[in-house]
Amino acid sequence: MVKRIGIIGLGTVGESAIRSLKRYASLIRKRTSLKIEIVRVCDTNRAKRSVAKKYSLKFASDPFQIINDPAIDIVLELIGGIHPAKEYIVGSLKKGKDVVTANKALLAECGQELFSLAARRKKNIGFEGSVCGAIPLIKSISEGLVGCEVNDIYAILNGTTNYILDRMHRQKMQFRDALEEAQCRGFAERNPSLDIEGKDALHKLCILAYLCFGVWPSFKKVYVEGIGKISLLDVLYAEEMDFRIKLLAIAKREKSGLDLRVHPTLIPYDHPLSEVHSSFNAIFLNTCPAGELLFYGKGAGGVATSSSIMSDIVNVSLRGGHFSRSIEDVKLKNMRSRTSRYYIRFMAQDKPGVLAKIAKFLASYHISIASVNQKARGRNKFVPIVIVTHEAREDRLRKALAQIDRLSMIKAPSQVIRIEDL
Amino acid sequence: MVKRIGIIGLGTVGESAIRSLKRYASLIRKRTSLKIEIVRVCDTNRAKRSVAKKYSLKFASDPFQIINDPAIDIVLELIGGIHPAKEYIVGSLKKGKDVVTANKALLAECGQELFSLAARRKKNIGFEGSVCGAIPLIKSISEGLVGCEVNDIYAILNGTTNYILDRMHRQKMQFRDALEEAQCRGFAERNPSLDIEGKDALHKLCILAYLCFGVWPSFKKVYVEGIGKISLLDVLYAEEMDFRIKLLAIAKREKSGLDLRVHPTLIPYDHPLSEVHSSFNAIFLNTCPAGELLFYGKGAGGVATSSSIMSDIVNVSLRGGHFSRSIEDVKLKNMRSRTSRYYIRFMAQDKPGVLAKIAKFLASYHISIASVNQKARGRNKFVPIVIVTHEAREDRLRKALAQIDRLSMIKAPSQVIRIEDL
Repeated sequence: MVKRIGIIGLGTVGESAIRSLKRYASLIRKRTSLKIEIVRVCDTNRAKRSVAKKYSLKFASDPFQIINDPAIDIVLELIGGIHPAKEYIVGSLKKGKDVVTANKALLAECGQELFSLAARRKKNIGFEGSVCGAIPLIKSISEGLVGCEVNDIYAILNGTTNYILDRMHRQKMQFRDALEEAQCRGFAERNPSLDIEGKDALHKLCILAYLCFGVWPSFKKVYVEGIGKISLLDVLYAEEMDFRIKLLAIAKREKSGLDLRVHPTLIPYDHPLSEVHSSFNAIFLNTCPAGELLFYGKGAGGVATSSSIMSDIVNVSLRGGHFSRSIEDVKLKNMRSRTSRYYIRFMAQDKPGVLAKIAKFLASYHISIASVNQKARGRNKFVPIVIVTHEAREDRLRKALAQIDRLSMIKAPSQVIRIEDL
Repeated sequence: MVKRIGIIGLGTVGESAIRSLKRYASLIRKRTSLKIEIVRVCDTNRAKRSVAKKYSLKFASDPFQIINDPAIDIVLELIGGIHPAKEYIVGSLKKGKDVVTANKALLAECGQELFSLAARRKKNIGFEGSVCGAIPLIKSISEGLVGCEVNDIYAILNGTTNYILDRMHRQKMQFRDALEEAQCRGFAERNPSLDIEGKDALHKLCILAYLCFGVWPSFKKVYVEGIGKISLLDVLYAEEMDFRIKLLAIAKREKSGLDLRVHPTLIPYDHPLSEVHSSFNAIFLNTCPAGELLFYGKGAGGVATSSSIMSDIVNVSLRGGHFSRSIEDVKLKNMRSRTSRYYIRFMAQDKPGVLAKIAKFLASYHISIASVNQKARGRNKFVPIVIVTHEAREDRLRKALAQIDRLSMIKAPSQVIRIEDL
């Protein structure tokens, strides 16, 4: 079988896809009998004609030269962002083409609409590269776990924030220095807010929520907290208590609803997720009957993602794409009603009675203290007091902290990080 | 589509497969439109009729009642061992049935013959459960990495030995005690030699060698060493040097040939494979272009394996099975010509000049010492001297050790464990 490919977007991912297809097409043909040919590549930036030239490919600056070309079977949408990527995908499906994309922001926002259009047109959208770049995660969940219920997900879905937290832990760097280093080394964008604020992880969590639970959550209903407020001080306290801090995307199927959220989390240092270093991604699943599973690999980068793009091309060509997931009526759990253990760091005036006051407020909201760490007095006006709570309700904790933060002896706001006892 | 299943073998795996199919068949149907029906189950042990009864299924004590039944589309071979499992699989394929099996020993020994028979008959053999029980590894490699070259494999493929080594590390138990505990807790067979001696890991490595490199290695040509000789002393020394000891199955594609082996290995304590605890399995792959990947999950047990069996049923029914791998002319590398760093523990008489003698012999075979750990004198006649070498050739090391072990001041044989700097 021959499949003819058109590529829209000649950035890092687009060019890597070309290079990998040139290099590995013969391998794929040997393994599967599928012959892959690149018919034409496109970028609205005409300067990218040089990329086409480098690989002796036909160039177009108008994406519709690809979308409307009857000789093309599969369109790779590799420009990212919502518009006009969405219009290109819709156009391609309507013209009877399969689509391969790594565009997590678009799928998180318009996945339901795009997948149902594809189903109506009996076409496929391959999206292996949209979550955890090189890890064959979509295929593993959709097909490898086809007889499994996924109950919980704990995932490191963003390489930039993992790189920064890893540097803070292993090199004892301040957040700002780690971010700067990440930018210098190409692990963070010049404007890193999508990553730092947890939104990129949220996009990927939404795609996983569709795959695992049949729900396309609205962004507004998912709690998201980034890593911008994590200080080296918290990292050091976490280590003292045998924890590491990771930005986790979490999904838990509970009786009262599906609990979805993205936030910095203290996890035990000897859990496999703690050993996910640098900009790697990993996803830990609790399933029935397959039990605990963990997948680890490169989460981004053109070269790594090209592996998923090739797998998608084979999958939509020979295997009919991923199994479509029916949408279910799943209620999202309210963040405020959930419980957790908490790490709380207060910056308090170093004088008698402070701890007693804090403890009193916590107790009045039924928040029970598991441990307190108050270091010897320093020369600073404010000294850290670190409290770890037992399981407590989020809404009660917030109310207690609002009151404590109003005390003159406390430098507000106090730092709160959730603990997951994986 | 409806697929009718016959099951041969009603041990732990067989009964778990029945239970999971009963429980998750409707989920699979919803996800894929495939309807799975169990037509008949079989065990040559007639007492197993009770299992059939428990699940209201028809029972046969003669496997050929299943193999010859034209109403059955897929046979699950879940008895294990070489004979008569092989005859059942051959018979089923010849009768035009697809086969699903988790039988690693059989595939390692007869995989080439069975897969080519299946190809000739245009039938499929699903074998997801044969390596790393619940991990969708076969699918990930065969399809998820369809455009990738696998260069290196470092894998924990045997749960029993990982459990024992993990207990030795984390509870500071002696090997015997850890083995006994593993047996009590059902993580080790009463006769654990297949696991302890590394043969089970070898079987799985052979299947991976087929999948990743297109070669079915002869057992005799693969170096296998079990964990029976690992003592708590080695575990403690390893930890002192920031290593952990794991039984690794290793494959490396090198210019001079494919390097395949199974042996206890010192690996850095902060590598994700070091955090694989209890009886879990994990596989670490170096690939191009997907980069480093790690898969982690339950390696055995009926419940976990039933997930892979269900995935296989869907895969052979709707997806045409895994892509068949063409056999390639791959030369296996000779163990003796390869190089490694080594941990060597000598038990030596506590008197002057011993270390000098050992060092002299090592030097005469061009083996260079990276570090020496000789503890303060004890009351024992023999005290441990631990040497870590720089990269050295295996054949030279063996010759040097043969000479050193002949010295009267050395209690032979000295302990050697290879180091992998992952």
